[in-house]
Amino acid sequence: MSLETISTNRSHGGTQGVYKHRSSETGTDMTFSVFVPDHAEGETLPVLWYLSGLTCTHANVTEKGEYREACAQHGVIFVAPDTSPRGDEVPDDEGYDFGKGAGFYVDATEQPWAANFRMRSYIESELPALLAASFPVDMDRQAITGHSMGGHGALTIALRNPERFRSVSAFSPIVSPLACPWGEKALGGYLGGDKAAWREYDACALIEDGARVADLLVDQGDADGFLEEQLRTPLLVAACEKAGQPATIRMQAGYDHSYYFISSFMAEHVAWHAERLAT
Amino acid sequence: MSLETISTNRSHGGTQGVYKHRSSETGTDMTFSVFVPDHAEGETLPVLWYLSGLTCTHANVTEKGEYREACAQHGVIFVAPDTSPRGDEVPDDEGYDFGKGAGFYVDATEQPWAANFRMRSYIESELPALLAASFPVDMDRQAITGHSMGGHGALTIALRNPERFRSVSAFSPIVSPLACPWGEKALGGYLGGDKAAWREYDACALIEDGARVADLLVDQGDADGFLEEQLRTPLLVAACEKAGQPATIRMQAGYDHSYYFISSFMAEHVAWHAERLAT
Repeated sequence: MSLETISTNRSHGGTQGVYKHRSSETGTDMTFSVFVPDHAEGETLPVLWYLSGLTCTHANVTEKGEYREACAQHGVIFVAPDTSPRGDEVPDDEGYDFGKGAGFYVDATEQPWAANFRMRSYIESELPALLAASFPVDMDRQAITGHSMGGHGALTIALRNPERFRSVSAFSPIVSPLACPWGEKALGGYLGGDKAAWREYDACALIEDGARVADLLVDQGDADGFLEEQLRTPLLVAACEKAGQPATIRMQAGYDHSYYFISSFMAEHVAWHAERLAT
Repeated sequence: MSLETISTNRSHGGTQGVYKHRSSETGTDMTFSVFVPDHAEGETLPVLWYLSGLTCTHANVTEKGEYREACAQHGVIFVAPDTSPRGDEVPDDEGYDFGKGAGFYVDATEQPWAANFRMRSYIESELPALLAASFPVDMDRQAITGHSMGGHGALTIALRNPERFRSVSAFSPIVSPLACPWGEKALGGYLGGDKAAWREYDACALIEDGARVADLLVDQGDADGFLEEQLRTPLLVAACEKAGQPATIRMQAGYDHSYYFISSFMAEHVAWHAERLAT
């Protein structure tokens, strides 16, 4: 596994890097960003994964996420992967909500997607191995967060891998692809019509089926235009209550779906994870 | 003066807006952004102006500047204008460093620039009047900052208007257009060959000619590729020392010319200005 450095910039008392590598899971080059706070030689730091939403690459949160100050303060490495395979040879859809930029963190089983759209295995297996080999990370101290489609990714990956993540949070997550048009289109396209196969990619269904995480934090803007039809936060509230899953799910008055919202609560999320990653 | 609202987003306990208006100075539509922290009804807040660098619009600092948290904390309104007139009817140059995106905060006297490139009067007169008429600003409490070409703009505007600005700071400013290629090209183009006319647009020359500001803060990355040839920080250090102008001019180890640098020290600059704007 070789890693190409695209750029490094000193920022907030640490190093913001952007890197590229050839992914065996997706069969394409993949780009991601890593922020590493200054630290003692030989020291390893806990890691917070951030999964991005529809249409995004690693760049959106890297430029607009306002996480570096908090990560430097708490000594947390921040990793932002891309949201899908890229390249001319990768199949795509005309919509912004399926295909490139819209991997939904699944391993596709349907054609023509199955060869490249393996974002579940990429995030769960390939990229962690590369990270462990290349950065000063303590892989026994991991947490995960994300936005919108990436919030869905963070919740489902954490629920399927509770031993790996001490904590999971999300900004305006899609809480149930089974119950929204974005999910219907994407999971139908990637996984086919048998909805039983979708349940391991649906946070509410995973909780209903018995999956649990140690601790869960969600912030959702009440002026978010996607809330009612696509994100459906109340379904997650109900699933957690019914299952006894501890969760802090907060509605934030006046906030929308943008990075203006995410950046407003990012430092709080970093601090919340850092507390759970401390020792 | 009518103001069109392009967008507003709730962020960090305030409102980030983007606005457009017809400018009588530039003869074009002009776009700018304003962040207004939450405040009591009828209360007015101090203002920090931020002038952007070459190739930028209002959007770069609005998205990447990381100023909102500090402005909300200190109750400071943040205004980010564009860097030049825009539009098909506005003359331009092939280079990134002259014409559109490169107004250099001068009132051009040469053709074909003189009609539209009036960024000095736009920033010093027209936009302040519009701001005072449309936002809850206390115009008796103003400060100014900027980056690169905008650092040049902030320094020169403050030095020419010391009664208006309580404090001025800059990130990696062009300290002497008289003494660098960017300045030679732009001021030569906008103002013509008589360098006596350039001195009111040169921070070092203004200080040499007797202009003073109450307080001045500069941060400059020592890994900035433009430092030696274009920015020339040591000239400002020397001019301030010779003239007895109080100044804090800091070299920041490892930092470059990007928003990764600016955002790292933005909160500190906002706090520094806020202290001087407090009462």
